[in-house]
Amino acid sequence: MLNCDFIKYNLLGDIMKKMLLKIAYDGTDYHGWQVQPNGITVQEALQDVIEKLIGERPDVTGCSRTDAGVHAKEFYCHFCCDDKFPDVTFVKGLNSVLPRDIFALECKAVPDDFHARYSAKGKRYVYKIKQTNPNPFDSRYSWYVSRKLNAELMNEFCKRIVGTHDFYGFSSSGRTVEDTVRTVSECNCKYTDNGDIIFTVEANGFLYNMVRILVGTAVGVSDGKIQLEDIDSIFANKDRSLAGVTAPPEGLFLDKVFY
Amino acid sequence: MLNCDFIKYNLLGDIMKKMLLKIAYDGTDYHGWQVQPNGITVQEALQDVIEKLIGERPDVTGCSRTDAGVHAKEFYCHFCCDDKFPDVTFVKGLNSVLPRDIFALECKAVPDDFHARYSAKGKRYVYKIKQTNPNPFDSRYSWYVSRKLNAELMNEFCKRIVGTHDFYGFSSSGRTVEDTVRTVSECNCKYTDNGDIIFTVEANGFLYNMVRILVGTAVGVSDGKIQLEDIDSIFANKDRSLAGVTAPPEGLFLDKVFY
Repeated sequence: MLNCDFIKYNLLGDIMKKMLLKIAYDGTDYHGWQVQPNGITVQEALQDVIEKLIGERPDVTGCSRTDAGVHAKEFYCHFCCDDKFPDVTFVKGLNSVLPRDIFALECKAVPDDFHARYSAKGKRYVYKIKQTNPNPFDSRYSWYVSRKLNAELMNEFCKRIVGTHDFYGFSSSGRTVEDTVRTVSECNCKYTDNGDIIFTVEANGFLYNMVRILVGTAVGVSDGKIQLEDIDSIFANKDRSLAGVTAPPEGLFLDKVFY
Repeated sequence: MLNCDFIKYNLLGDIMKKMLLKIAYDGTDYHGWQVQPNGITVQEALQDVIEKLIGERPDVTGCSRTDAGVHAKEFYCHFCCDDKFPDVTFVKGLNSVLPRDIFALECKAVPDDFHARYSAKGKRYVYKIKQTNPNPFDSRYSWYVSRKLNAELMNEFCKRIVGTHDFYGFSSSGRTVEDTVRTVSECNCKYTDNGDIIFTVEANGFLYNMVRILVGTAVGVSDGKIQLEDIDSIFANKDRSLAGVTAPPEGLFLDKVFY
């Protein structure tokens, strides 16, 4: 498998270059980004297609590990290939072979020390809560909550999230990192024109399930099950049990990656 | 199987009633409406779920046979059941068991002589042609045409479609009816706010693949491959070969059924 994080030449001695590929995908039918034994993932689908086009299987490294069912309006990944690939028709070629739920947007060469994940300075996620007119066309892309939520109260919760905090209590046990302090630069809830709710959060990094637990907690605040004063305890005591449910994956979109 | 088009009592002698169910569905993953041996259909999925709820398998009759991959914003079907079913919680119960791409909207008792298909006075279809910003979230619900289409010219085509014509030349060989004359009461192309195109057609009935061939022909007119003068020949000579391609199913929605 072609990997250029450590080597600069392929087995034939040809020089390799590092490419940054921007894609978007509907994650409904995937077991998340990262290759795993029990189901097809976006990474695997992408590696399959790139292998078809360039003749060798690339080691594609993503900007984040999105969960099963989560979507990406933009997602970046890097991989290496012979210097002569890909040519200008690469993105078009990818789209002609990719399944319709993955779409290639852009591909360009990047410096050798660029890393899709570690070079990212921050990310923005959006989460859609559908309040009106449930239907089969939005059900892949939103969480339908039939009771009327209070976006103003949810916004009060959002304000308390902004800043540098230990988000341990807002993450699931599957987390893979030691340092659970993150800086949230933006967090808010807004009504759409037709009365649905968009939750937006931007941070320098996210823990496992963090956005979905933040959304579930915002809904818990709206429902009166969680008090705004509890938020400080969740931070201080790292207490996951005080936070809300993990909102379902279908409403979540990786919206923007900042490099 | 419970069928009340001819009998009014079930095997136990209980009186039956006829129910009209309104649903919406994302047809992407179905082989159309009608039960068939080689793939799951909406009719089959629905019968499975209703059987679970009322304890007997209903014979569900749809308002039209939509093709594989075609969607419905509203679709009606009738079925019979014991007089005591379904109660007011039926629609909610259906939605708790139905797959997420089928959604029950409404269910009510109708007179014995009502028929979901034959009682329909007309139908409206819409077809979405995506011209801008292709992405994996719209790819299930639109036909992406990257070349710029001329909606004004397509509208000129639409004007010639309105009226009572023999639409034989705008249908596929799989048609099951003898009489191929239909009356189109409305047909037009409009730009959406972001520059995509919505084709709308309303008629007292439609032939097999008729809307998709009309859309393909409108695109052919825009491309200059089909002249507006050819339309009269297609009507007069019933000549399918002069019409355009059959547009792909994913852009097509049954939008409204008139009773």
